[in-house]
Amino acid sequence: MAEILAIKPAAVEGPVVAQLDKGVLRLTLANPPANALSLAVMAALTAELERARTDKAVRVIVLSAAGKVFCAGHDLKEMTARRADADHGKAFFAETFAACATLMQAIVRHPLPVIAEVDGLATAAGLQLVASCDLAIASHEATFCTPGVNIGLFCSTPMVALSRNVSRKHAMEMLLTGETIDAPTAKEFGLVNRVVPREYLNQIVTKYAQTIASKSSLVVKTGKEAFYAQAEMGLADAYAHTGAIMVENMLARDAAEGIGAFIGKRKPQWSDE
Amino acid sequence: MAEILAIKPAAVEGPVVAQLDKGVLRLTLANPPANALSLAVMAALTAELERARTDKAVRVIVLSAAGKVFCAGHDLKEMTARRADADHGKAFFAETFAACATLMQAIVRHPLPVIAEVDGLATAAGLQLVASCDLAIASHEATFCTPGVNIGLFCSTPMVALSRNVSRKHAMEMLLTGETIDAPTAKEFGLVNRVVPREYLNQIVTKYAQTIASKSSLVVKTGKEAFYAQAEMGLADAYAHTGAIMVENMLARDAAEGIGAFIGKRKPQWSDE
Amino acid sequence: MAEILAIKPAAVEGPVVAQLDKGVLRLTLANPPANALSLAVMAALTAELERARTDKAVRVIVLSAAGKVFCAGHDLKEMTARRADADHGKAFFAETFAACATLMQAIVRHPLPVIAEVDGLATAAGLQLVASCDLAIASHEATFCTPGVNIGLFCSTPMVALSRNVSRKHAMEMLLTGETIDAPTAKEFGLVNRVVPREYLNQIVTKYAQTIASKSSLVVKTGKEAFYAQAEMGLADAYAHTGAIMVENMLARDAAEGIGAFIGKRKPQWSDE
Repeated sequence: MAEILAIKPAAVEGPVVAQLDKGVLRLTLANPPANALSLAVMAALTAELERARTDKAVRVIVLSAAGKVFCAGHDLKEMTARRADADHGKAFFAETFAACATLMQAIVRHPLPVIAEVDGLATAAGLQLVASCDLAIASHEATFCTPGVNIGLFCSTPMVALSRNVSRKHAMEMLLTGETIDAPTAKEFGLVNRVVPREYLNQIVTKYAQTIASKSSLVVKTGKEAFYAQAEMGLADAYAHTGAIMVENMLARDAAEGIGAFIGKRKPQWSDE
Repeated sequence: MAEILAIKPAAVEGPVVAQLDKGVLRLTLANPPANALSLAVMAALTAELERARTDKAVRVIVLSAAGKVFCAGHDLKEMTARRADADHGKAFFAETFAACATLMQAIVRHPLPVIAEVDGLATAAGLQLVASCDLAIASHEATFCTPGVNIGLFCSTPMVALSRNVSRKHAMEMLLTGETIDAPTAKEFGLVNRVVPREYLNQIVTKYAQTIASKSSLVVKTGKEAFYAQAEMGLADAYAHTGAIMVENMLARDAAEGIGAFIGKRKPQWSDE
Repeated sequence: MAEILAIKPAAVEGPVVAQLDKGVLRLTLANPPANALSLAVMAALTAELERARTDKAVRVIVLSAAGKVFCAGHDLKEMTARRADADHGKAFFAETFAACATLMQAIVRHPLPVIAEVDGLATAAGLQLVASCDLAIASHEATFCTPGVNIGLFCSTPMVALSRNVSRKHAMEMLLTGETIDAPTAKEFGLVNRVVPREYLNQIVTKYAQTIASKSSLVVKTGKEAFYAQAEMGLADAYAHTGAIMVENMLARDAAEGIGAFIGKRKPQWSDE
């Protein structure tokens, strides 16, 4: 983390480092080498996401990680220690998976786009983080797996996110064999959008983030929410739902401004700029 | 449109030209350069689709466009003009998106297969038309985008069709960045079936259409309806629904004829031929 | 079948040959050349699957076929003969499609993973078998189609499985044209996981099967059931469902053993070994 901290002082100390630059909030998992999702890390990440909901200065979120592992999933040592509890860990495990579900849905339900920047191994709940983001960009060195089956703990929660990104046969191959796929295979499967050279990863992710940050946050928020809502509906309901949203969107100031600018061949000025 | 009209007189004057040849009804958006989906164009296209439902001579529909743009989506000038209405356009916008939802669902719910022939830019509701068709064949010159986010109007209705064709990460990349993809990328995403040289586009689409037109219309209708119905069901319901349809299909005259012809190694004669 | 029988005596005589080797149950359709799914074959296959549910010695199932055709779908001659029945075959057709739905769902709902080994034509309900399996590995000689539309009997039940594996445009192209795709195209569409040389097909499928057979059967069963259950849920329900499963999985003996072995860098010993 030294290099990151040297460039820009972190806004928050702890297992998640938050840095804001030109509307792009970069949240870095800063607990290498595993960047495991302990309860503390999940709480910190969820808190940062929650804070960003109301921070007008934030327009896009990037989720990255320090070190060679993007995220190794849940903290198995933390969980194993709680087997000594009177209930053999049941309450703690329930708390852990509830926190995980909250975190993952906080990404999907977040009003702002979240982009995963993956440069290393994303495994189990770490892969789930990538799959839960709206976009994912990986270096050639990134790898992905759902290896729970190898340790007697099937990746049943990671597969919720995985199976909403890749086809059934691909998901089942990853889940049943526990084997690791490389970045080009992850792109072929639909888990990541692009695979780029490691030395340009940060630059390309930042370019994507700034492109999206240049849009109206209100409009992006409207669209992202509508996307995941309609994805769970039948066709008729999806059109009824999004049709109403389009009418509201047309009546919003930013549509008048954006369409006016387009017709007038000028640059739009969004209400939240 | 001159060239098309020279070959075959249009059955209908107006923004949509209808031509019937050997069971294939070609509906051409004939309002270049943008082929925008004004209320009038949407009404004309929906009316042509409705008419084809009961025209026994029509077995397959091709949706194409005149000029370099397949379809630029809704008519932004028409909509902007209605901001001067007492309700700031609200009623007109609601009418527009209702007409759009009716049109798109008229394609999906149509008893006959609809093939998009795309040779140019398909954008916003224009892309939605392509995604709503059963099949789509594009020239190498075709391009696709959902650029609403650039003008303050997120492509929330186009994404209903888009997200039922391409994976989540791909859809979100198109929706959030508003950037244009080329035809090979659209094929890779699953939005189009084939990419062919421009000079053969019409010929290849016609071949597809005639292949499908050579089947029993009754059987094709049964299958297309079942396809979109079961797509919205859980597995058990989908099998209950389609199993009953298979029994009815087996009892229909065209199955007896088709299976008899197959066993007897002769050409079947469909009831609607 | 002579060669297979020479290697290992079949456990069951009849249209489906069952062979168990090191936890891998190989069920071979042994009714060439068509390996058609007559009522007798569907009953035999379903019975073998049912028997394997309670046989502790079985950990993974492979579904293969003798001869050049993997499976040609339903037995059209058997069905055609029943048109002479008083009800024109209605009861028999209903029985056939009910048996088919039972068989296909027996694969999806089976507690053990089922791998299709495809070395030849898989057509109509034969393709449905492949699509219903958790994994599918094909030789370069394998081909796939849903040709019902050519014989007046739309592949309405096969498409339930097909459309849960491949995108809408790809499924509709196969269903509407009835044309055959080769193995690389099937891989591109997501219908099969891998395409391998014919001479290595059996060896590679066996390697996949043994890899999965080396996991805890209890954990694999838990995961497979959760996979198809959550696939039909919205996101919040999917997380509630799988979160509870993860807690139970953590409390199971095999998770304690597997995680302990992982932390201790030793090989786990599953409870069912």
